[in-house]
Amino acid sequence: MTFIHKINNIQKENNSLLCIGLDTDVRKIPTSIRRTKNSQLEFNKKIIDATKDLVCAYKLNLAFYESAGERGYETIHKTLEGIQNNIVTIADGKRGDIGNTAEQYAKLIYDDWKFDATTVNPYMGKDSIEPFIKDEKHCAFLLALTSNPGSKDFQYLDVKGRPLYEHVAAKATRWNTKKNIGLVVGATHPLELKRIRSMAPGMPLLIPGIGAQQGDLEKTICYGCNKGGGLVLINISRGVIYASSGKDFARRAREEATKIKDQINYFRKEYFG
Amino acid sequence: MTFIHKINNIQKENNSLLCIGLDTDVRKIPTSIRRTKNSQLEFNKKIIDATKDLVCAYKLNLAFYESAGERGYETIHKTLEGIQNNIVTIADGKRGDIGNTAEQYAKLIYDDWKFDATTVNPYMGKDSIEPFIKDEKHCAFLLALTSNPGSKDFQYLDVKGRPLYEHVAAKATRWNTKKNIGLVVGATHPLELKRIRSMAPGMPLLIPGIGAQQGDLEKTICYGCNKGGGLVLINISRGVIYASSGKDFARRAREEATKIKDQINYFRKEYFG
Repeated sequence: MTFIHKINNIQKENNSLLCIGLDTDVRKIPTSIRRTKNSQLEFNKKIIDATKDLVCAYKLNLAFYESAGERGYETIHKTLEGIQNNIVTIADGKRGDIGNTAEQYAKLIYDDWKFDATTVNPYMGKDSIEPFIKDEKHCAFLLALTSNPGSKDFQYLDVKGRPLYEHVAAKATRWNTKKNIGLVVGATHPLELKRIRSMAPGMPLLIPGIGAQQGDLEKTICYGCNKGGGLVLINISRGVIYASSGKDFARRAREEATKIKDQINYFRKEYFG
Repeated sequence: MTFIHKINNIQKENNSLLCIGLDTDVRKIPTSIRRTKNSQLEFNKKIIDATKDLVCAYKLNLAFYESAGERGYETIHKTLEGIQNNIVTIADGKRGDIGNTAEQYAKLIYDDWKFDATTVNPYMGKDSIEPFIKDEKHCAFLLALTSNPGSKDFQYLDVKGRPLYEHVAAKATRWNTKKNIGLVVGATHPLELKRIRSMAPGMPLLIPGIGAQQGDLEKTICYGCNKGGGLVLINISRGVIYASSGKDFARRAREEATKIKDQINYFRKEYFG
């Protein structure tokens, strides 16, 4: 199945555009499960179990696993084993390197861990991206306009009357011969998101910045969705997974995820009927 | 000791600008040591042992260790333990992410593995770089102009009459309050290197692209060195570590490293006396 099919299917099946970000910080794991053998994995399993009918995707922030040491590799592997096949999985590593190195990352992310998709930094150009888009069942989400304050430093630089991130979006649409490139666009930039969607009407957009970073959900849905009211993945990490630090963390994560999913669907209905 | 001190010291002590890139591909390890318990580590140890008086730095390409599975973490750790304290160590991961994620990578690279320096992708801007330049004993080498064909896609885009990579170099010099930012500039672009050196006269430049990628060594030395004929790190990976696939791989790596070190010093003498 192609990536586009998979994301469309699960967005319909679970009626959800929500992607939960498993940025699982070992220091923030509730004390109630901290003594288990691999508390990071245990935490992920409980979050997934509590939310799997509410999401279209899970995104694993690789930094939080790699910084946990050698166990990190296995935690990623086993977390993915515990996610149903119909849900999209995204490796958030923002890698980008010359061809022979990018090949190594692609092998790790797609072949060993079996992610469906990954985030990629576009700065090094086409040959650094190619290993991630060889197969149409995999998707590379290129960083276009990120949600952080530093996005102002380079991404907005004016290149022939258009900001740099639009050049990234334009190149991405040109390279998208297998329909398996997506873009990362922060919810903290709603008008820019509108413009990017108009440039890439059929591309999946991965959207961080709602929640801790205070992006605007209504505008994100209105401007980010494709004509059918889909193909955006609204990522929330901390706002869901750390909803409570008590024993009730999984139940509270479910409540938060439900709330956001419902808000998203409220706006989808309003704008896309 | 600050990073600048450390790199200046070792460049004098070993009379070398050579950085050996340990892009150790498990599939390319000589059969003679392939049966050892951790052949990737064994290979690195033998290469380091054979070349440690010829280099100013070792650069580990993280992709090759991460893709080797959970053992990768330990291989990096133990490889670094086997490098003398006076030699500079660089984690080549080209990471770059929002603040709280970049913190995790910085912790892993500097605190756990104890690298001196790392490569960082600048696309996400200042807050994605800050965690890597908190301490003056650590250096972040920002990608400015890379050696691969894809460098043409974005890095050369014209921004107010200057290519994008010069804006990266200009911002880097402005952010360099602790004198611990460096730049990555591919040897495949000698004239651009000259211009970057003139913009950043005191910055260490990490230069890949000699060897497999066929950059020009003479021009790289002539244009890349600072006034004292130093502060560039000429990285060679495949050309040295895979000089032979036989039992003599370490001896042949030493021969290749000696040859390149001598070539570098020949041009240094010619241009800097």
